[in-house]
Amino acid sequence: MRIDVLSLFPDMFGPLHDSIVGKALDRDELEVEVTDFRQYSTNKHGNVDDYPFGGGAGMLLQAQPLFDAMAATQKKAQDLGHEKGRVILMDPAGVPFTQKVAENFAHEDHLTFICGHYEGYDERIRTLVTDEISMGDYVLTGGELPAMVMIDAISRLLPGVLGNEESAPGDSFSTGLLEYPQYTRPADFRGMKVPDVLISGNHQKIDEWREIQSLKRTLLRRPDLLEKLDLTGDQKRKLRDIQIDLDDNQQ
Amino acid sequence: MRIDVLSLFPDMFGPLHDSIVGKALDRDELEVEVTDFRQYSTNKHGNVDDYPFGGGAGMLLQAQPLFDAMAATQKKAQDLGHEKGRVILMDPAGVPFTQKVAENFAHEDHLTFICGHYEGYDERIRTLVTDEISMGDYVLTGGELPAMVMIDAISRLLPGVLGNEESAPGDSFSTGLLEYPQYTRPADFRGMKVPDVLISGNHQKIDEWREIQSLKRTLLRRPDLLEKLDLTGDQKRKLRDIQIDLDDNQQ
Repeated sequence: MRIDVLSLFPDMFGPLHDSIVGKALDRDELEVEVTDFRQYSTNKHGNVDDYPFGGGAGMLLQAQPLFDAMAATQKKAQDLGHEKGRVILMDPAGVPFTQKVAENFAHEDHLTFICGHYEGYDERIRTLVTDEISMGDYVLTGGELPAMVMIDAISRLLPGVLGNEESAPGDSFSTGLLEYPQYTRPADFRGMKVPDVLISGNHQKIDEWREIQSLKRTLLRRPDLLEKLDLTGDQKRKLRDIQIDLDDNQQ
Repeated sequence: MRIDVLSLFPDMFGPLHDSIVGKALDRDELEVEVTDFRQYSTNKHGNVDDYPFGGGAGMLLQAQPLFDAMAATQKKAQDLGHEKGRVILMDPAGVPFTQKVAENFAHEDHLTFICGHYEGYDERIRTLVTDEISMGDYVLTGGELPAMVMIDAISRLLPGVLGNEESAPGDSFSTGLLEYPQYTRPADFRGMKVPDVLISGNHQKIDEWREIQSLKRTLLRRPDLLEKLDLTGDQKRKLRDIQIDLDDNQQ
């Protein structure tokens, strides 16, 4: 996969070389090129922003530098054998980023991320874009951190990037349920003990305990996730038992 | 405000010095200290992770290094005059991060972020924590990028950090509505023109157009946001007109 990033702050992308993205880069499963689109400004001072028509606070990114940076990076990617793929704009008004979106993007050969900054962008920039994605309902200074979050989530889904030792089947969202509580050594840490079942050696009981804990945590914290799942009859029965236990404890 | 960050990858936090967080640091509105909690491991190899009790893929962060790093950073912060404040764990099972959560945290004097890595953490680490926060329904390699996202969102809310020129009243989520389309020069970019009203000079009409566009975009993309708002009678009337227009256009 090739990822192009268009940003005014290319130095912010240092963290990509740590952790999983660095591993994907090392294994040639991924190439990432960050382009400072200021260098494409035709303005003699290299300006990339201007006041909004109709007045208002803040500055907007102009269309020209991004249009020309897009043309140049798409041409280079094409010369390297990558057809124009999805072009992603980080925007609070976009589709919320989820694991499903990450899985979807992980199947692409070429992604381009446009990172805004300042108060917003000229509306015409949206014509370059195939996907507008939101990180969540909050306001950030720029699109750089959200782009890195997305690249991290996508990279770990590329084939060969996560070793078996890391691809835990219990990951939140991969099963649709929140993860069960986990414990590592020591069995007694400053008086806080690991549940007996986990050191019982009885794997059937451990699996059952874990499923109940996942169901319980999801019920308590994110009941909305349960509604989206096709639960088995056994899981539904367990959920009913959990609910009865919780009701009993509240009395 | 003081922010302590506990992480195994302190070098990833370079981007904090760019953009708005750097400005908050320069203006002494914020101090950020990133502590590598590996240095608190009492294991002779400096290990911080171990296998899960009960079996399973992946490694878990152990309790001891984080407990001791917390004790040390809390003591240092206290010596500098900061009482123990909120302690935030990035966790997919946590409360979703929103602008309201950011505003809430922006009023605190001291925040500590615990950044996990590997497949998860020993459950006992949660006893250190006051807030478990999720960035969204997706799986990331570690808590570093989400912590930076949160620190960015919080920093820009600190008094004196955003200049007036940057604090746009039309920001998505600050009004509860998505932002209206914005345009900057040129008025005609490669055949794509700015809406006439924005160059009319009639500010009453411009304000009205913008409100209608915000309502329309929110209705089309995020109707869930409208349900949470106390709309004025005028806004409700505008929304009805928008809905009628949309229905007419679909026929």
